[in-house]
Amino acid sequence: MEKITSLLKRRGFIYPGSLIYGGLQNTFDYGPLGVEMKKNIKDEWWNRFVRRRSDIVGLDSAILMNTKVWEASGHLAEFSDPLVEDKITHERFRLDHLLEQAGTKIGGLSFEQMIEKMKGKNIKSPNGNELTDPRKFNLMLKTSLGATLETSSDIYLRPETAQGMFVDFKQILESTRKKIPFGVAQIGKAFRNEITPGNFIFRTREFEQMEIEYFILPPKEDKEWMEVFNTWQKEMEKWIEDLGILGSDIHILDVPEGERAHYSKKTIDFEYEFPFGVKELYGLAYRGDFDLQNHIRESGQDLSFVDEDGKKFVPHVIEPTFGVDRTMLAVLVSAYDKEQVEGEVRTVLRLPNWLSPIKVAVLPLSKKEELINLCEDVLRELSDLGIISEIDITQSIGKRYRRFDEIGTPYCVTVDFDTLEDKKVTVRDRDTMKQERVALTGLGKYLKEKVF
Amino acid sequence: MEKITSLLKRRGFIYPGSLIYGGLQNTFDYGPLGVEMKKNIKDEWWNRFVRRRSDIVGLDSAILMNTKVWEASGHLAEFSDPLVEDKITHERFRLDHLLEQAGTKIGGLSFEQMIEKMKGKNIKSPNGNELTDPRKFNLMLKTSLGATLETSSDIYLRPETAQGMFVDFKQILESTRKKIPFGVAQIGKAFRNEITPGNFIFRTREFEQMEIEYFILPPKEDKEWMEVFNTWQKEMEKWIEDLGILGSDIHILDVPEGERAHYSKKTIDFEYEFPFGVKELYGLAYRGDFDLQNHIRESGQDLSFVDEDGKKFVPHVIEPTFGVDRTMLAVLVSAYDKEQVEGEVRTVLRLPNWLSPIKVAVLPLSKKEELINLCEDVLRELSDLGIISEIDITQSIGKRYRRFDEIGTPYCVTVDFDTLEDKKVTVRDRDTMKQERVALTGLGKYLKEKVF
Repeated sequence: MEKITSLLKRRGFIYPGSLIYGGLQNTFDYGPLGVEMKKNIKDEWWNRFVRRRSDIVGLDSAILMNTKVWEASGHLAEFSDPLVEDKITHERFRLDHLLEQAGTKIGGLSFEQMIEKMKGKNIKSPNGNELTDPRKFNLMLKTSLGATLETSSDIYLRPETAQGMFVDFKQILESTRKKIPFGVAQIGKAFRNEITPGNFIFRTREFEQMEIEYFILPPKEDKEWMEVFNTWQKEMEKWIEDLGILGSDIHILDVPEGERAHYSKKTIDFEYEFPFGVKELYGLAYRGDFDLQNHIRESGQDLSFVDEDGKKFVPHVIEPTFGVDRTMLAVLVSAYDKEQVEGEVRTVLRLPNWLSPIKVAVLPLSKKEELINLCEDVLRELSDLGIISEIDITQSIGKRYRRFDEIGTPYCVTVDFDTLEDKKVTVRDRDTMKQERVALTGLGKYLKEKVF
Repeated sequence: MEKITSLLKRRGFIYPGSLIYGGLQNTFDYGPLGVEMKKNIKDEWWNRFVRRRSDIVGLDSAILMNTKVWEASGHLAEFSDPLVEDKITHERFRLDHLLEQAGTKIGGLSFEQMIEKMKGKNIKSPNGNELTDPRKFNLMLKTSLGATLETSSDIYLRPETAQGMFVDFKQILESTRKKIPFGVAQIGKAFRNEITPGNFIFRTREFEQMEIEYFILPPKEDKEWMEVFNTWQKEMEKWIEDLGILGSDIHILDVPEGERAHYSKKTIDFEYEFPFGVKELYGLAYRGDFDLQNHIRESGQDLSFVDEDGKKFVPHVIEPTFGVDRTMLAVLVSAYDKEQVEGEVRTVLRLPNWLSPIKVAVLPLSKKEELINLCEDVLRELSDLGIISEIDITQSIGKRYRRFDEIGTPYCVTVDFDTLEDKKVTVRDRDTMKQERVALTGLGKYLKEKVF
């Protein structure tokens, strides 16, 4: 993991945030290569699940929402971790973590049950000291809006993008006139005051989600929602496969009753074998009509759907959730490879071509002007075709190959002195390292077919 | 303006945020059509200024930054509005606004000078009551991170995306090995606790920016930075033109000395004739080396650039800033049109094709199955070509044309009973309303050339 993070920082994928000021509590910035790769992920997700489907529409709701949203959703009362404090050092710890370390299964335990377990087990702080009674620590980040006494109020940064889709459900229905089943999709930032952020970009307080709420008619039989659930599970598996993640590195966890939310008849986690353990990558949940019913009750608004016969329903919902940052991490970990080549170690990111931030490297064999001019012509042609490319003129050709292997560039195009004569270039494949002479005429088309 | 906002809400461009709970202080959500149009704007900006240029790289830095960033940038001390309070009603007002209304030019006045003016003018509250002395009200939204006593601290949501690009300057330089001149570009959310948000999405507390910091060598003569400045001014004018905004609706304001920041030798505002007045749309500023020098001083880090001869420089910077939400608003206002057609009023959004959220409407003349099947074939072909399209089968063809005129769809394709015979469809142009028979074979290619 350290080797990967060091590569990602050095090459401009992911930097520690606010680094010149000593950083800030596990925040990260996406550098020039990271931001391109992240955009590739988000664009393909949006094209696949929104633009190429007529049954899903997009939304971009505000991060700042009325506090009543979080009252209705239960986040204000329940979205919390149980914290205990070391009576001597005043350090705070998550009680659920301490209980787990003491061998207690905590899945599904209520706050009160955890207190009982804590007393029964005589749990101490990791420093060996006594602990205070636990208190609930809400995970939402609070801020305050407004300057006048009348309007100033506590506001929370959304801890998930999902609620925006429920709160706007009726407006979306009215303006799009969609029929059930249909879905709403959103990509956006969310914030959680995690007690223990960590493992690089796996758990951060600021993160980005790609979520879909897929609304269906209230099912008369389980098999009705099960069919939609299974279809979404397959969609997610296909997505994971297209990211270049091996199916054997993914474990589907069927979250047992008692550990999943009480309103969910089925929840599965897509777990990935991260270097620091098997952890949740994505989630898929059947949430019934819990969310819409909450908002109907608390807002007093009618959020039901009326079908062509005039019958009213509160739709049920299936929710596929994808973390953007976790996608980045899983893809990068999957793609990272080292191998022996001619007695040297070659580091290579075996990214699927569509994910690579730079698709083609254009390399003049020497710094001679006529070669560089030719390279610039090639670059311009590729750029016009929408193929992100880069010219690199420094150091030996071997070192330059390694430099682009390391960032996952699928093809290197070398312009040499023969090129001036035969109007051909050498195209090298990142994975096979095989080289091919390709005519300059048609080079753009040749590469375009390969990289998209 | 009311007609426009009502259209935008009704058709799913822009909804009031948290509406079912009575909204939240001028927050807005982008609905299914708005999110597509916004994505078109951001994607084109990114393609134009990052992907198609070899001298600009992208960044996506965190919204949460170390508080020392805002100490260094001056935001913590200076990014504030002067507020006064009505002694009777306790309402608060911006003193600069009250002074302006009283006919005082406040550009460039310091906080202390405003107090003097206030006393001299005997400024009263709009309710006629006495006012308190002004106090500085910081515009940054504050939150708090961390659960343990040791790490919990006040953190601000960034009020601009720019600082991320300065703070990461050295990391970007090292990982990309770019030479000066080069730029860093970023698109992202920022937050300001505006005292008086308003005018729809013109001034909101949560907003999105597209910014570039373009680094140049410290100029020996003014004309060196002036040339780069002029080039950027032209780039911005070209961008505005491509948005379909008339040059005559744009006013370039050369911000006079005393009103612009003290470190800026030149700042221009691109002002647009919004329905509620002539207001700032974009900005372009030459900021010297003010930002990097601040961070060098406060962080103690060396943020200079070393050229090939080993000479060290602190680069200067030209900063073009584009508001995403203001772009949306200016484009929508510019595109909105009403005209008399056959005795009826036609509302039409004359959006440039590349900005339209739905490019093509596919309309069966009747609900007959064979026509709908044909429409679905057409939709599939267009979708495969990346052309976002929609089938609409309800109401008369005339009403459906109007519906798509209103959301700026450039082309309507009508499938009628003749289509079954002659394999041709009617393609209607939004602006001219002219209709043309086009063969089904090649229809996708025909439309693709028109809409992109």
